[in-house]
Amino acid sequence: MYKKLKLGMIGGGQGAFIGAVHRIAARIDGEYELVCGAFSSNPEKSKASGELLGLSPDRVYNSYQELYEKEKQLPEEERVQVISIVTPNHVHFEPTKLALESGFHVILDKPMTFSLAEALELRKVVEQTDRLFCLTHTYTGYPMVKEARQLVTSGKLGKIRKVYVEYPQGWLSTFEEGGENKQASWRTDPKQSGIAGAMGDIGTHAFNLAEYVSGLEVVQLCADINIVVEGRQLDDDGASFLKFDNGASGVLFATQVAAGEENNIKIRVYGEKGGLEWQQDIANTLLVKWLDRPSEIYRTGGAGVGSFAQHNTRTPGGHPEGYLEAFANLYRNFALCVNARLEGKTPELEWQDYPGIEEGVRGMAFIENVIASGKSDKKWTDFTI
Amino acid sequence: MYKKLKLGMIGGGQGAFIGAVHRIAARIDGEYELVCGAFSSNPEKSKASGELLGLSPDRVYNSYQELYEKEKQLPEEERVQVISIVTPNHVHFEPTKLALESGFHVILDKPMTFSLAEALELRKVVEQTDRLFCLTHTYTGYPMVKEARQLVTSGKLGKIRKVYVEYPQGWLSTFEEGGENKQASWRTDPKQSGIAGAMGDIGTHAFNLAEYVSGLEVVQLCADINIVVEGRQLDDDGASFLKFDNGASGVLFATQVAAGEENNIKIRVYGEKGGLEWQQDIANTLLVKWLDRPSEIYRTGGAGVGSFAQHNTRTPGGHPEGYLEAFANLYRNFALCVNARLEGKTPELEWQDYPGIEEGVRGMAFIENVIASGKSDKKWTDFTI
Amino acid sequence: MYKKLKLGMIGGGQGAFIGAVHRIAARIDGEYELVCGAFSSNPEKSKASGELLGLSPDRVYNSYQELYEKEKQLPEEERVQVISIVTPNHVHFEPTKLALESGFHVILDKPMTFSLAEALELRKVVEQTDRLFCLTHTYTGYPMVKEARQLVTSGKLGKIRKVYVEYPQGWLSTFEEGGENKQASWRTDPKQSGIAGAMGDIGTHAFNLAEYVSGLEVVQLCADINIVVEGRQLDDDGASFLKFDNGASGVLFATQVAAGEENNIKIRVYGEKGGLEWQQDIANTLLVKWLDRPSEIYRTGGAGVGSFAQHNTRTPGGHPEGYLEAFANLYRNFALCVNARLEGKTPELEWQDYPGIEEGVRGMAFIENVIASGKSDKKWTDFTI
Amino acid sequence: MYKKLKLGMIGGGQGAFIGAVHRIAARIDGEYELVCGAFSSNPEKSKASGELLGLSPDRVYNSYQELYEKEKQLPEEERVQVISIVTPNHVHFEPTKLALESGFHVILDKPMTFSLAEALELRKVVEQTDRLFCLTHTYTGYPMVKEARQLVTSGKLGKIRKVYVEYPQGWLSTFEEGGENKQASWRTDPKQSGIAGAMGDIGTHAFNLAEYVSGLEVVQLCADINIVVEGRQLDDDGASFLKFDNGASGVLFATQVAAGEENNIKIRVYGEKGGLEWQQDIANTLLVKWLDRPSEIYRTGGAGVGSFAQHNTRTPGGHPEGYLEAFANLYRNFALCVNARLEGKTPELEWQDYPGIEEGVRGMAFIENVIASGKSDKKWTDFTI
Repeated sequence: MYKKLKLGMIGGGQGAFIGAVHRIAARIDGEYELVCGAFSSNPEKSKASGELLGLSPDRVYNSYQELYEKEKQLPEEERVQVISIVTPNHVHFEPTKLALESGFHVILDKPMTFSLAEALELRKVVEQTDRLFCLTHTYTGYPMVKEARQLVTSGKLGKIRKVYVEYPQGWLSTFEEGGENKQASWRTDPKQSGIAGAMGDIGTHAFNLAEYVSGLEVVQLCADINIVVEGRQLDDDGASFLKFDNGASGVLFATQVAAGEENNIKIRVYGEKGGLEWQQDIANTLLVKWLDRPSEIYRTGGAGVGSFAQHNTRTPGGHPEGYLEAFANLYRNFALCVNARLEGKTPELEWQDYPGIEEGVRGMAFIENVIASGKSDKKWTDFTI
Repeated sequence: MYKKLKLGMIGGGQGAFIGAVHRIAARIDGEYELVCGAFSSNPEKSKASGELLGLSPDRVYNSYQELYEKEKQLPEEERVQVISIVTPNHVHFEPTKLALESGFHVILDKPMTFSLAEALELRKVVEQTDRLFCLTHTYTGYPMVKEARQLVTSGKLGKIRKVYVEYPQGWLSTFEEGGENKQASWRTDPKQSGIAGAMGDIGTHAFNLAEYVSGLEVVQLCADINIVVEGRQLDDDGASFLKFDNGASGVLFATQVAAGEENNIKIRVYGEKGGLEWQQDIANTLLVKWLDRPSEIYRTGGAGVGSFAQHNTRTPGGHPEGYLEAFANLYRNFALCVNARLEGKTPELEWQDYPGIEEGVRGMAFIENVIASGKSDKKWTDFTI
Repeated sequence: MYKKLKLGMIGGGQGAFIGAVHRIAARIDGEYELVCGAFSSNPEKSKASGELLGLSPDRVYNSYQELYEKEKQLPEEERVQVISIVTPNHVHFEPTKLALESGFHVILDKPMTFSLAEALELRKVVEQTDRLFCLTHTYTGYPMVKEARQLVTSGKLGKIRKVYVEYPQGWLSTFEEGGENKQASWRTDPKQSGIAGAMGDIGTHAFNLAEYVSGLEVVQLCADINIVVEGRQLDDDGASFLKFDNGASGVLFATQVAAGEENNIKIRVYGEKGGLEWQQDIANTLLVKWLDRPSEIYRTGGAGVGSFAQHNTRTPGGHPEGYLEAFANLYRNFALCVNARLEGKTPELEWQDYPGIEEGVRGMAFIENVIASGKSDKKWTDFTI
Repeated sequence: MYKKLKLGMIGGGQGAFIGAVHRIAARIDGEYELVCGAFSSNPEKSKASGELLGLSPDRVYNSYQELYEKEKQLPEEERVQVISIVTPNHVHFEPTKLALESGFHVILDKPMTFSLAEALELRKVVEQTDRLFCLTHTYTGYPMVKEARQLVTSGKLGKIRKVYVEYPQGWLSTFEEGGENKQASWRTDPKQSGIAGAMGDIGTHAFNLAEYVSGLEVVQLCADINIVVEGRQLDDDGASFLKFDNGASGVLFATQVAAGEENNIKIRVYGEKGGLEWQQDIANTLLVKWLDRPSEIYRTGGAGVGSFAQHNTRTPGGHPEGYLEAFANLYRNFALCVNARLEGKTPELEWQDYPGIEEGVRGMAFIENVIASGKSDKKWTDFTI
């Protein structure tokens, strides 16, 4: 008989945006059951959050350490199996490391860690513990993003030459720090976010999307990093030229001061024979352009799409699937792989297609390299890890 | 402490499209726990479906009658509270009636019944049993559809003059009956669908959307109803002029033979001062047009939207919410009202905004009137119930 | 050596919208030279208009009769060859008839005449005089509309089943009659416009577009015709079901009270294998949809388009061509045919593709039939000429 | 009485793309009459082109020198007044200089000259001769681009912070040099185009658009310039970071190897209070975004637009105006200024809004600076003239 995976959550107490999103993602396809949590470093708040979520009070903990410790002592039938970690960046590394070392599989919000050094150490922990690990770069969960990657890697566009990726937001156009917007406060605070603001929060998404869709790796970059809003401590805007390992070049930009913009992350990739274009605002459409014939419109659930898109689609074409479904695709694929592990089976290729530790290491390297380049007078900075 | 509503499902066994959608909708916001089901009239299939869903075998039943009977005998703490009915149209009335009479609240897929006569009887049952009842006209669950209604009913567009609504599909462009496509088979079978095909399946959605957004009621119609694909038994195409109770007029069309179309249901409403336009393909955008100033773009999660849209939104603007979230909004609002009832509280206006028995009766009346008009040589048919 | 065709204009004095459009259309490709005109029934105004246009005063006339009379007496080398008639509807028939009988070729603005009776008589005059005649149904001049027709008539979409055509405008949402808006005044005046308002002004465009793109003829219709704005004398709104000669059905609507709408005339046609969609707002794009593969985007000047679109395109793909270029295509094709006639050559098929007397007769028949249907209690009215 | 300006053309013989475009632009509004030309350095070809255009053979010349010489000797009433120069870049400077010195006003295709040195010298000639001069940066002729500039310069968006401009093309994705595509051959030939390929051909358009709409001047840049197609001699791809004189930053990219792209030049500008977005593919729409209220859609011919857009619009909203009308706006405004000069009047501000010698100098400086930056290892290059 089918049994749901038992899920625990670190962070994500009342009012947190991304914690609620993770919980919806975990619920959509029914593979997880939330059984425990340490939702806040404030015990009262953690308890209240657990109650709202219908958790048994004895499985709402005051700290992640307590959660791991107590859960380990439970019988295997009851014990949590997968830990979701949705805390601010400076509280990513320790809880993840300890979770893995405690035998749990982990789903972690991006960017992976506070620094590249932590990321490299975490990679070792993942290898040593042999636990499964997922990093929630949501946008790679969209069916049409997966279709884009499959089109590119199948060679249909020819050798890739150009990659343009952008993530314009406007929500930090004014000085929000220290006010009621908690999101704004921690994301602009170097003590909680690390050395990057916009580059860490959304630049990493753009970078990850570029590498995912193109199937290429960045080897050099040249960045212009800015603090636009007076008084802000971290970058709220930046752009970078990219050089890829096959010789292709690209442009990435991410900004949080494009007043009036929401979250329309967009990617365009061009090869010798054709190009493609995807953006979150019309997430179920992938435009495919050709040198010598009419452009085509690939659609979620539509005719002609490949195995990866199909596997990540729930409804017939034309019933839009959105951000939460893309997020749920990460959770679902991770569950399929965890279950395969539990059953000693080999997971399908389509199931394994979720971002993991390598994407996390590269994302942290992106942050460090792009910030370094922003400070450098030299044009090109080698992408080093 | 928060407790999930206990949900049971009638129909929706393996392979059924809409059953899976209902289950996702019930899961997204975590207010329900699926505890029992009678998923198929075939006991083996029902059992297998229940197993896949992780249900306890003793709560997977062979029939809805058995489900209601056995569940009633369970202690109140365990007993199912809400029944989802997702069977084909000819198996709507009896299970719903019995569920209500057995004391359960009911969520029913549309169209409500097999005939208007059944609908009228069901209305009496709902009144007599005083149970809560939701009919899943999904499209009214979209935040921007709710915004459209709020804009219209607030009077900002002035007196409404014109309503255009359309639902073009292409999936029945060829004769699919009797083949592997079960959807196609039962929806084109008068024994299972009733007197209407396209008009019942998607025409009712268009009709419901028109009345919901405009806040008006149809009083007359004039229809052109067609069977386009040879050999088909029910209409696969139709259009109707509409006259509303305030004197406004409109055009509705619904077709399943528009080759290449998916599910882009669309509505446009015009008043003396302005108009609006919404379509499922860009579900998070509501275009608002004005006589004397630039059009505006209202967005899910965006600035300037009203209380109904806000209440039905989960993510910040620009993270697309789709069909499943719209569906989940019906489930969520229904849960809020059921819980309010259980706690003896008055539900908020925004919570009560889900389609119910009146919408169901009007939908069935639409089917009977539109089909009658299609057969009539007279231009106008009064909309009678 | 190349010589421009000598053009004269009837109507279109200062302040007239459509006269200026005709003059631009005549200029764009350089085949015409405006040599004379009778721009207004007011001699002072006619004179002033001629002066502004740089005409020699002795070729600015006080009436169309005078123009034809005097021009006929000029040596052939100087004499006007083509007459553009851009007066209100009630001054279409007489000037056109007399121009043809005076030996001139004629370009006439739509709708062709004041009544169907006039249209039928004009058809005889065209036949008897053997002059060339063009009716400016502008929208058929767009390259992507021509591509649509070529795709349909080539059979690529299979047998046509459905045609949806619409023309929503908002500019008559309030009572404008008798005010400064001369357009509004004459177009709503039965003495100048004839028996139809919106149906004559824009309904005929929609009707013409439907027959042009589908290659079919309407044989029956059922209309709902309305006067929405209080005090108005002619219809400002209407819709019609259509039945075509191959059994296909359709819906047409045209309204001038859709507040906030501009001129986004749109057509969708569906056959057994696929469909297509074109609208003026994105005039250089033709969406082509298929039952079993991704939709395609055909583009003005783009890859894969046919001979008719190519012939009517001036710039490489992506440099938008608009309404004036579409209008100019009618003038250019007409000039090519007039010149072929002058040189005794057979014009290419692509040159002959402009609306003429048959389209005019059918347009006037549409007006009379649709208005008759609007007044009838019977559902279907045969399309009679 | 109104008299057309007498126009002569240098270059633009049969088969040349841009010459035909200039002629259409000159014709659309009827202010010019083409009276003479030296259409090719090949006398036979020049003669044949003149004949096709209906010119008197004695005013078709074998060289621009001959044209100026002979025309100067004609009586003022007959003599050409405005010279259009539409030759490849290396034949811009000499014919323009001599035209100005011969007393003619000049319209010149972009980029202005072969080198910045020539541009600076040309600026002196313009000043010394006091002739009027227009450089055809077409995109600034679009009504919605003018509206964008007026919105920005009116301060409605607040202080400008970010400018993104892009011009993706795909037509040079393969090696076309030396083949039948003459456009491709001369534009990739350093002897005819100068030191830049894509940067000169379309990068200058993007640069000009950025400065025009933002009302700012670039003071620093950092470029990545590439030759993507093997064997090509000039850049076919590039990107540049921009720093503006008010502290704003930006990103520009232009490429001719984005396979499948046409000519969708696009600009986005963000200030403290809002942003705007325009692209050629939907040229009649300007999206205006706000921090705290719904986005607005400004439209050519629509409600709420300013004096510059209005002055440059010919048709009511919703009849698309395109590339040729944008081009014609340059010609029209130039004609209005030339006529004002002839009549000793002061031209309106809206008439003077066409690109001139300063834009030309800055465009040539852009080419030299961006190419220098592309070769430099330093990140930032000062924008020097």
